[in-house]
Amino acid sequence: MAKAPDLDDFRVPFFGESKKAKKFALADFDPAAKPFSRGSKDADRERLTEVTMKLDSQQDRLYAQRYQRVLLVLQGMDTSGKDGTIRAVFHEVDPLGIRIVPFKAPTPIESAHDFLWRVHAHAPAAGELAIFNRSHYEDVLVPYVLGQIDDVERERRFRHIRQFESLLAESGTAIIKCLLHISKEEQRKRIQARIDDPTKHWKFDVSDLAARKLWDPYQTAYGEALAATSTEIAPWYVVPADSKTHRNLMVAELLLRLLESMNLEYPAAKESLKGLQVE
Amino acid sequence: MAKAPDLDDFRVPFFGESKKAKKFALADFDPAAKPFSRGSKDADRERLTEVTMKLDSQQDRLYAQRYQRVLLVLQGMDTSGKDGTIRAVFHEVDPLGIRIVPFKAPTPIESAHDFLWRVHAHAPAAGELAIFNRSHYEDVLVPYVLGQIDDVERERRFRHIRQFESLLAESGTAIIKCLLHISKEEQRKRIQARIDDPTKHWKFDVSDLAARKLWDPYQTAYGEALAATSTEIAPWYVVPADSKTHRNLMVAELLLRLLESMNLEYPAAKESLKGLQVE
Repeated sequence: MAKAPDLDDFRVPFFGESKKAKKFALADFDPAAKPFSRGSKDADRERLTEVTMKLDSQQDRLYAQRYQRVLLVLQGMDTSGKDGTIRAVFHEVDPLGIRIVPFKAPTPIESAHDFLWRVHAHAPAAGELAIFNRSHYEDVLVPYVLGQIDDVERERRFRHIRQFESLLAESGTAIIKCLLHISKEEQRKRIQARIDDPTKHWKFDVSDLAARKLWDPYQTAYGEALAATSTEIAPWYVVPADSKTHRNLMVAELLLRLLESMNLEYPAAKESLKGLQVE
Repeated sequence: MAKAPDLDDFRVPFFGESKKAKKFALADFDPAAKPFSRGSKDADRERLTEVTMKLDSQQDRLYAQRYQRVLLVLQGMDTSGKDGTIRAVFHEVDPLGIRIVPFKAPTPIESAHDFLWRVHAHAPAAGELAIFNRSHYEDVLVPYVLGQIDDVERERRFRHIRQFESLLAESGTAIIKCLLHISKEEQRKRIQARIDDPTKHWKFDVSDLAARKLWDPYQTAYGEALAATSTEIAPWYVVPADSKTHRNLMVAELLLRLLESMNLEYPAAKESLKGLQVE
């Protein structure tokens, strides 16, 4: 019997880690796999409810403590389910300490700065859990695939990303990055569904088709970006995401493990309030 | 006859530069010196007018081009003349492309982030010349002198500063950093003047006296910070600043030299507008 999968089987090797026998290749991960499924959709949903309730409890301590910070980065091709993951994983979590930050194509003002400028402004504050819906990783993917930046500039950005994330980490931010990994055929179905359903037209943009034509270059660019920026303090995980229930569950499990590793406790009572009578 | 001074005689050796015969020591610089004086206050003011007019012309091209960025960092002990320098050097420069950013003690929201968070948000955009009135350098001075951070944390911050400034530089920002260097006796006179003149009381805060008591530790901390963060892409200069006219002139000369080295030109005319008739 094969050994049960571990979350770390889906971790991208750290940048600079001594070359593995097997090099990291995104294509080695099956988007249709459901390694963390509990056997049925119902069982998965039940487990997800359990995990999100624990997430809520952990996040409440994070917020009360107002000391550490958490950053979850979600990346993936169009229709990979970034919005859906956020909805499913965080709908039970108190919104007070959660901040969802969607990154779109940079505005002229944002483009007038270095690529990390707008990202840094949204870094989580003490006590916050920030979720980046797309992120600074777009800036090593889109312009590279479109030929707007070359390898030298991309390497430079990789380096700046590693340094930037080390700044966040050394300032008390726990970071986890998830690639929602879908197959080309799954994307075809999802885009087709958006086109076929007029109520979903708002989710569709013709530019999605242009990006789809560049599927292979994007897969390559994703693989290279993950390999260059997965670090001990900000690891990348590949989340098989053709199954939505599996995707949601795996992201929730990863996040819960991270929060539990932080040993979050409520702050101690204040001695100075001892015996205080409110008049 | 001694060789005429060069602006670079006042540059702090770059971090990592092979050890000079003479190590950098802030105490080696005489705050009362006026190396770039033209011989009299009047001559200095005349030259300053000349330089600021050139600065205005350079800055106009920077703004028109909307491509490169400039960052001037001003640091110095209380009363060293940061506000006065900004007033004197930039009063002739078109305010459109200038942004003056004063950094005070961090707010609770700012403190809840890494120390570069609030600074990054104010980095100059394409076409902008930003002047930091105090800066991220406060965060390797004040908390260190007050014993709130140790040597390990300070080294970490030095490293993050070098990396952050390299991000700005590689994204098209020319950086220059000036320490307005005054003597302890000059500060005494200036604080006394503020106390003796009720119309200057708003400039005075009792905390200035507390900081003054820590004069020597601050001088040491300044020297170490400059040595650890003077780099080819973001050099530090020591500006003798007991004389206000000299201080203004030297900062203006340093900035002009930087702008002139950028070869700023107005953008080329657009071919597509050729022959266009407005109807």
